[in-house]
Amino acid sequence: MKITIFDSTLRDGAQAEGISFSVTDKIKIAQALDSLGVDYIEAGNPGSNPKDLEFFRYFNENGDKSLRHAKLIAFGSTRRKGISAKEDKNVNALLESGAGSVCIFGKSWDFHVTEILNATLDENLEMICDTVAYLKSQGKEVMFDAEHFFDGYKNNPEYAFASLKAAQDGGAAALVLCDTNGGCFPNEIYEIVKKVVAEFEVPVGIHTHNDCEMAVANSIMAVEAGATQVQGTFTGFGERCGNANLSAIIPGLQLKKGYDCIFPDEMQNLTRTARFISEVANTSLNKRAAYVGQTAFAHKGGMHIDAVAKNPESFEHINPEKVGNARRNLMSEVSGRSTLLKKVQQVNPKITRDSLKMARVMEKLKEQERKGYQFENAESSFALKIRRIISKRKPLFELCYFKIISEDMASASKNVNATAILKIHVDDYSVTKSLDSINVIVAEEGNGPVNALDSALRKALDPYYGEVLKNVKLTDYKVRVLDSNDATQSKVRVLIESTDGTRKWSTVGVSPNVVEASWEALMDSIKFKLIMDRDKRYEVFAY
Amino acid sequence: MKITIFDSTLRDGAQAEGISFSVTDKIKIAQALDSLGVDYIEAGNPGSNPKDLEFFRYFNENGDKSLRHAKLIAFGSTRRKGISAKEDKNVNALLESGAGSVCIFGKSWDFHVTEILNATLDENLEMICDTVAYLKSQGKEVMFDAEHFFDGYKNNPEYAFASLKAAQDGGAAALVLCDTNGGCFPNEIYEIVKKVVAEFEVPVGIHTHNDCEMAVANSIMAVEAGATQVQGTFTGFGERCGNANLSAIIPGLQLKKGYDCIFPDEMQNLTRTARFISEVANTSLNKRAAYVGQTAFAHKGGMHIDAVAKNPESFEHINPEKVGNARRNLMSEVSGRSTLLKKVQQVNPKITRDSLKMARVMEKLKEQERKGYQFENAESSFALKIRRIISKRKPLFELCYFKIISEDMASASKNVNATAILKIHVDDYSVTKSLDSINVIVAEEGNGPVNALDSALRKALDPYYGEVLKNVKLTDYKVRVLDSNDATQSKVRVLIESTDGTRKWSTVGVSPNVVEASWEALMDSIKFKLIMDRDKRYEVFAY
Repeated sequence: MKITIFDSTLRDGAQAEGISFSVTDKIKIAQALDSLGVDYIEAGNPGSNPKDLEFFRYFNENGDKSLRHAKLIAFGSTRRKGISAKEDKNVNALLESGAGSVCIFGKSWDFHVTEILNATLDENLEMICDTVAYLKSQGKEVMFDAEHFFDGYKNNPEYAFASLKAAQDGGAAALVLCDTNGGCFPNEIYEIVKKVVAEFEVPVGIHTHNDCEMAVANSIMAVEAGATQVQGTFTGFGERCGNANLSAIIPGLQLKKGYDCIFPDEMQNLTRTARFISEVANTSLNKRAAYVGQTAFAHKGGMHIDAVAKNPESFEHINPEKVGNARRNLMSEVSGRSTLLKKVQQVNPKITRDSLKMARVMEKLKEQERKGYQFENAESSFALKIRRIISKRKPLFELCYFKIISEDMASASKNVNATAILKIHVDDYSVTKSLDSINVIVAEEGNGPVNALDSALRKALDPYYGEVLKNVKLTDYKVRVLDSNDATQSKVRVLIESTDGTRKWSTVGVSPNVVEASWEALMDSIKFKLIMDRDKRYEVFAY
Repeated sequence: MKITIFDSTLRDGAQAEGISFSVTDKIKIAQALDSLGVDYIEAGNPGSNPKDLEFFRYFNENGDKSLRHAKLIAFGSTRRKGISAKEDKNVNALLESGAGSVCIFGKSWDFHVTEILNATLDENLEMICDTVAYLKSQGKEVMFDAEHFFDGYKNNPEYAFASLKAAQDGGAAALVLCDTNGGCFPNEIYEIVKKVVAEFEVPVGIHTHNDCEMAVANSIMAVEAGATQVQGTFTGFGERCGNANLSAIIPGLQLKKGYDCIFPDEMQNLTRTARFISEVANTSLNKRAAYVGQTAFAHKGGMHIDAVAKNPESFEHINPEKVGNARRNLMSEVSGRSTLLKKVQQVNPKITRDSLKMARVMEKLKEQERKGYQFENAESSFALKIRRIISKRKPLFELCYFKIISEDMASASKNVNATAILKIHVDDYSVTKSLDSINVIVAEEGNGPVNALDSALRKALDPYYGEVLKNVKLTDYKVRVLDSNDATQSKVRVLIESTDGTRKWSTVGVSPNVVEASWEALMDSIKFKLIMDRDKRYEVFAY
């Protein structure tokens, strides 16, 4: 059975704190959603945000770049009271967008009508019916979002139904029941949707919010009760706690319950799309996100890893490949030899379980873990250590020394309280065109010692690797003290996460000195990118 | 109706990628959960992790510091096949822990018994019954976690029930149904739990995982079907996509459905506790987390803000104060005025809710929070800020400047890669016996810049405060990046925990420069100790 997927990342998603999309961002996201087979893309509210008209114009004017499947939706509200729909400039902005489909929201909760809208109950019903009818007369497909439908139903079921009736009478193509405040429970949603489906002829949709962390369950229960359209945002962001997360709902319905939501061939691009949208929105995708998160299929306990090796079904609810994600056996000493062997063999298939090199890799792992390294979240650093064992290739650059002078911020000049002197040698004929290794000495300043070192390293490498490193940036930096008994002399572990815009990788450094540990993780990050750039097999250590 | 809350942050939560707790971390978290009124705290698996025994020993040996309500749980598995429970060293480790309550997991899914455990179906039932009975005969309250119960039930309902029967026959105090792979849907959970509750006399519990983003809904549906115990982790972290998030389940059940979960008076500490646990675990609490997240009650849309001003119910499913959270468009009084007032009055009882000084304290708090300070886990630093407002006394010492020279470890001499020059003035007649402030310039060396600064500060203060500071040492040092977009230029927040052997206190520093932030937290730590030493009233800001 077909379930219509209606994505509002570009409209309701843009209500989330910290999210703001450029027109280009919105075009990229719309194209990504279209590729998957999403049916409707709600792309803006042209009445309240004129910038949204630019977006719609792009698609109106670019017939050749038009979407292959999805329909764009312009979003707005019912007309204001006391004027006709034709006179309402926000309603007309929907027409100006040129979108063939529109979604308008109206009030279903009597309390909202009288207290917030200051209209009479009858006026509101007319506003709904009129607005739908007018837009339909202009050739539009009209969805009706019944705002606060469930709260309204609980307070005054007759009136909530009357609001749906008004939309149906106006010619709405779908009646979408909204849990606007996100406060409903799955069994309530199920019961109420069932009643609506029994009563109305028009297809019923569901639009939930995550204020009780139940938006996914509520959407799925609504479908089980007969709803045939699901509205949400692709990675779940939205106002307050966010909207229903489509990247969890779609595989739940399609892979587990046999509903038809998106193109079956595209399901394997689910993870990639979620990560892409997060990148464009400049947010981090929740690592623990269902189906698409970085740790969604990560196993740490030795017993679990062994069981999954025997039979993946033992601790995986689906095969991660179906959604384009991957099993990650976290590389800790407890996770054992077989996990590691598999990774090593992806780089060099000749290495076997019993080979000497494998024994040295295991030995290295144990030795490093004793020193406080942790590779389960820093596989790229471990890849560099493996490379030193299994490959004869020289390191691309090495540190000679660094010296840093820091002072307190009150004494320093603005944002510059550390200066670094760095000397490295670069031993890589392909870029230096010299058979000797080249020494580079640079000085740089920064806000804090780590920032100064980071800037100095980039400056030193720029003549040789500037192009490759151009888009590399650090996206996270974490420090953990390993043994707190010794306080400021304790060992610290620094974890750095980097990206080149396409992939992410994590590296680690351990030292009693936070600057030294940061330097180690920083240098690994840059080296890993350089190596991955030349040898694609190392991509298995990125994500 | 009472619902038993069973928190596994310290056990199942520790299976999450990137989480590792020290014994001190675990003690702090256990105490925080206990204050709320959580019934059971699953604190470790002493069989597989001997370090966990240290934790249990702390509570066994500290009768006076014992928990006021919660029972500690030691976790383990059923005995191995072919030996008696008495002979099994992991089972005996549960007894060694000294915990009065234990939780053991056993197989309920026939496929797991034969394929993963390599036991016969009957052997497994004996293992369950024996282990429960043995532990019970040793005076323990025994919970039984039926691993993969729902998958097992779907495959072979008779056998899944037989596993519960074996536990009941052994004397289990509760039968806990686990959705171990996190793949179940709310309606399935509801139906199956209902059947179990109808069949068994023993209380039934629910333990879900979040692989479909439905763990909260699944737990709540299980309760609606008759389960009376909910297992989860307080902020939802755990293996793969995490465990059921108790900070969403507890208010859902208690505030909306009238169940009795935690102490009613403590519900307003829900947000603070979630943030505290995240800080101790050195993870970021999801900003969009239901009820307790930073944006859970943040309103962005103008229309929504207006409506909420007219009537909060219009876009808020509950009053955020009930869970100690706050509406964000009003202001970020997350810490809560009344809590703060209480502490301030313990130092100066004359200050009232409406006094000018209280207004200035609140203003300072807001200003500092905007800059990225967070005092939930660093009250001592806030106490110093309060003191500057409510007391006329001079600071005991102040920084003039510091300068640090660091170099890489290879170039440096052993364990000395940083040297610090520090100048402070000491303005405290009681120790200097001088009416002028005294300037002190010292140099010290150390392993890393922070260690060198720490040593220098102690050397400078030694002639004046050596006796008071003699036993002070730093016990923890944590660094968190506040805004990752700017990588090594991002602001960092440093949290330092100190002790004098009797009390502990925590201080905070924020700066784009990790050395500066560390210095701020370090200086606060020393100042706080000096002040607390002279004025016992400040002890309310220690713990």
